[in-house]
Amino acid sequence: MASIFTKIVNGEIPCYKIAEDDNYLAFLDVNPNAKGHTLCIPKQEINKIFDMEEEHYLGLMKFSRKVAKAVEKSVECKRIGVAVVGLEVPHVHVHLIPLQDMDDMRFQRKTSLSPEEFQELAKQIALNL
Amino acid sequence: MASIFTKIVNGEIPCYKIAEDDNYLAFLDVNPNAKGHTLCIPKQEINKIFDMEEEHYLGLMKFSRKVAKAVEKSVECKRIGVAVVGLEVPHVHVHLIPLQDMDDMRFQRKTSLSPEEFQELAKQIALNL
Repeated sequence: MASIFTKIVNGEIPCYKIAEDDNYLAFLDVNPNAKGHTLCIPKQEINKIFDMEEEHYLGLMKFSRKVAKAVEKSVECKRIGVAVVGLEVPHVHVHLIPLQDMDDMRFQRKTSLSPEEFQELAKQIALNL
Repeated sequence: MASIFTKIVNGEIPCYKIAEDDNYLAFLDVNPNAKGHTLCIPKQEINKIFDMEEEHYLGLMKFSRKVAKAVEKSVECKRIGVAVVGLEVPHVHVHLIPLQDMDDMRFQRKTSLSPEEFQELAKQIALNL
């Protein structure tokens, strides 16, 4: 069965899109640890990040760096944290998380935004790319 | 003042070394979230990962991938998690964490090993590179 992220790639599930190229997609996490929490994924459905071919993996990390810089310009934070876990959705995703403190990294304290706020934020980050 | 990691790079503080090249160093975290928790750092002291020059950053991610594959071969785990935080030590470090569950990513539940166990583990991971 296609992962939820493959469904997003295919447009079957909507997302607050930030950036896209032939191989990668960035969009806002809808259950964010902090405002600006963004996911960067390869369009190809691969379970584990270190199983990606080296060039494909490095392309994802290059794409994620570009997106992270735009997120950092768009929201107040001390820095952008990075997490790759994948215990829930078996499709590689790089979490980019604007950090104020360590709790922003723990996936326990969550924040909520309205659809309008998500949309405005995605637009703002895209403008800062 | 030099960061604790610069002191490790300079040999002023010992570490359980796994791998090293001209630009990067990998060693065991001595306060690990899980057995095999490894840090990959650039030898150059830079505070924030996305402030690294693109090529230097991609070199670190390539180095980290190689080390992660060796860690995964060396310890029982579901996958290797990645975290970059940096709120405590202002010297870029990529955490590679063997995961059993989400708590391994939270930097709250810690594990302890004896010096002999650390030494043996570092040796084992290095052999799997």
